[in-house]
Amino acid sequence: MTTRPKTPRAADQAGKPHVNVTSYDVALLAGVSQSAVSRCFKEGAAVSDKMRARVMKAADELGYTPNLIARSLITRRSNLVAILISNLTNLYYPEVLSELSQQFAANGMRILLFTLPHEGDIDRVLAQVWEYQVAGVIAAARLTPKQVAEFERRRIPLVMYNRTLRDKAVNAVVCDQIEGARTLVSRLAAAGHKRFAIIDGPGDSVVGQERTRGAVERLAELKLRAPVIVAGNYDYESGVNGLREIIAQMGRAPDAIICGNDVMAIGCVDAARHEFRIAVPAKLSVAGFDGVEPSTWMSYNLTTLRQPVQKMTQAAAGLLTSLIDNPDGAPEKRSFSAQFIEGGTARLGPPA
Amino acid sequence: MTTRPKTPRAADQAGKPHVNVTSYDVALLAGVSQSAVSRCFKEGAAVSDKMRARVMKAADELGYTPNLIARSLITRRSNLVAILISNLTNLYYPEVLSELSQQFAANGMRILLFTLPHEGDIDRVLAQVWEYQVAGVIAAARLTPKQVAEFERRRIPLVMYNRTLRDKAVNAVVCDQIEGARTLVSRLAAAGHKRFAIIDGPGDSVVGQERTRGAVERLAELKLRAPVIVAGNYDYESGVNGLREIIAQMGRAPDAIICGNDVMAIGCVDAARHEFRIAVPAKLSVAGFDGVEPSTWMSYNLTTLRQPVQKMTQAAAGLLTSLIDNPDGAPEKRSFSAQFIEGGTARLGPPA
Repeated sequence: MTTRPKTPRAADQAGKPHVNVTSYDVALLAGVSQSAVSRCFKEGAAVSDKMRARVMKAADELGYTPNLIARSLITRRSNLVAILISNLTNLYYPEVLSELSQQFAANGMRILLFTLPHEGDIDRVLAQVWEYQVAGVIAAARLTPKQVAEFERRRIPLVMYNRTLRDKAVNAVVCDQIEGARTLVSRLAAAGHKRFAIIDGPGDSVVGQERTRGAVERLAELKLRAPVIVAGNYDYESGVNGLREIIAQMGRAPDAIICGNDVMAIGCVDAARHEFRIAVPAKLSVAGFDGVEPSTWMSYNLTTLRQPVQKMTQAAAGLLTSLIDNPDGAPEKRSFSAQFIEGGTARLGPPA
Repeated sequence: MTTRPKTPRAADQAGKPHVNVTSYDVALLAGVSQSAVSRCFKEGAAVSDKMRARVMKAADELGYTPNLIARSLITRRSNLVAILISNLTNLYYPEVLSELSQQFAANGMRILLFTLPHEGDIDRVLAQVWEYQVAGVIAAARLTPKQVAEFERRRIPLVMYNRTLRDKAVNAVVCDQIEGARTLVSRLAAAGHKRFAIIDGPGDSVVGQERTRGAVERLAELKLRAPVIVAGNYDYESGVNGLREIIAQMGRAPDAIICGNDVMAIGCVDAARHEFRIAVPAKLSVAGFDGVEPSTWMSYNLTTLRQPVQKMTQAAAGLLTSLIDNPDGAPEKRSFSAQFIEGGTARLGPPA
């Protein structure tokens, strides 16, 4: 036999595309140079329609796709963004990840997802993040100053989502939790509530800590008794058990319960109504934080502080994208106010 | 000056780690061979403790991390798994993505996340998937036979989650939606319900179509009147509006409403109780599908068919991992039965 197969690889595989097909194979089959193939796959490069058609036909025949990862090794840029988010956040506040992923997709970025069993499990995950050529990172989880410094050392753009550091300038998009908690206490106090309780977020949740701190501070300013505080884990059961514990500690229900997130507030409302037969809001006011979708359902119509999640995720994606383009800009923090949702689970006084 | 800097790069950067630090730089600084550095970063390779300490010190000083992506180009293996999932699924059934991501993390895999605005938006996303050296793909979204064939052509392992193809052998983990829907109709019919309505899932949801088909088939077998079917989009509003539309079409409420997922069933229950003052389940039975967390809340205690999401995601991750190790195994389909949750929103007859 003297007929040479068009390309050795295509022949080897009896028509099956070879996983290692390169631009050189395409060039060989199309009868053009490798640089012509490369130009055909580069946006904005000048190539004749005839050349493009010829190359695309060969590429299709061989199952060739330009390898973005190989290219990123050459250009030192990838369009991969890592999102670090706690598992609880996605379970009880899925809006955050859904919105972030839409925002990045709209910006042409792809997402490498790391869900953390706990907010503090980040060290183990960071070791993995360094191994990928990510263009940037969104961290919706707790980072230490040392961990943030490691991002700087590696020159990986970082935007913290709903978290920040007190003693270090970082890029962050946050919702003002303390302001929100203070407003809530003021409105409840204005309606005559005197005995407060708090169902707290998990110990490693920065957001939860700020909400509790804001409420405690404002109660002290108003010279109201310090609240009973019980621990919670952001889930429904924590709201149910939280109410049981509060009643056990106080001997009866308080006037108002502030819950570290909406899902716990929903559990608390359900336990009050269905287990303790306490009328909400007539006998007990309950409020949450976040403004998740179930808080709007007719059975709850929860009094809450809604985070402007669409604006916040848009800001986070925009900030990270601009940092990727210009990594040496001064750190920027964008803070949004929560929207007060009066709802129907708390008696409220007029706004100050 | 005659003193040579330890490595030119480290000196250039005045102590800052260079983003392009390679194993050769580490070898130079540590005074060992490049292959010794490589061995130190390879699991299970024989290296003396002294050598390891020396190399790690140099690596740390230079900010060197072995580049997994570069390595994957050499070994033709990455530990990146792409998950394709519709945005609605994560918003209303966050358990699926949360569990999948935990399962893959436990297997040492990283997740490239693609959320789709609609189930059918997959073509645009696939073009992006091909550009990454993913080891495999989980598709919790609708794929055509042509799209599945493209995976085979590219030899990329694929496991379909809760979807399958009728006329093509594929790797899939599914919950038997038709069986579940048939059981539900049987139990409702056994309690004497005669007039049925269905709030359907979105047109491009395979899962929703199967649920509706199972219910319609079983009603016909039982010689009950064909149900009124109204369209829905898996969200709460679709449940509320669905009930309104059903009542408008039928002139009054039916005996039972089967909803394509739990969130619509929750909307339907709320609208019945709070808008139409119809007692559920005394005057109207309502049932859903999925067994999402809010379906268990005291205000609902929904009658539903729970998908064993933990078992299913475990099976999907296990199946994909074994396909990555052995891509030429025969296609395997693992089907799980839904768990019938009697709940409190439907009057039910005894099981057959």
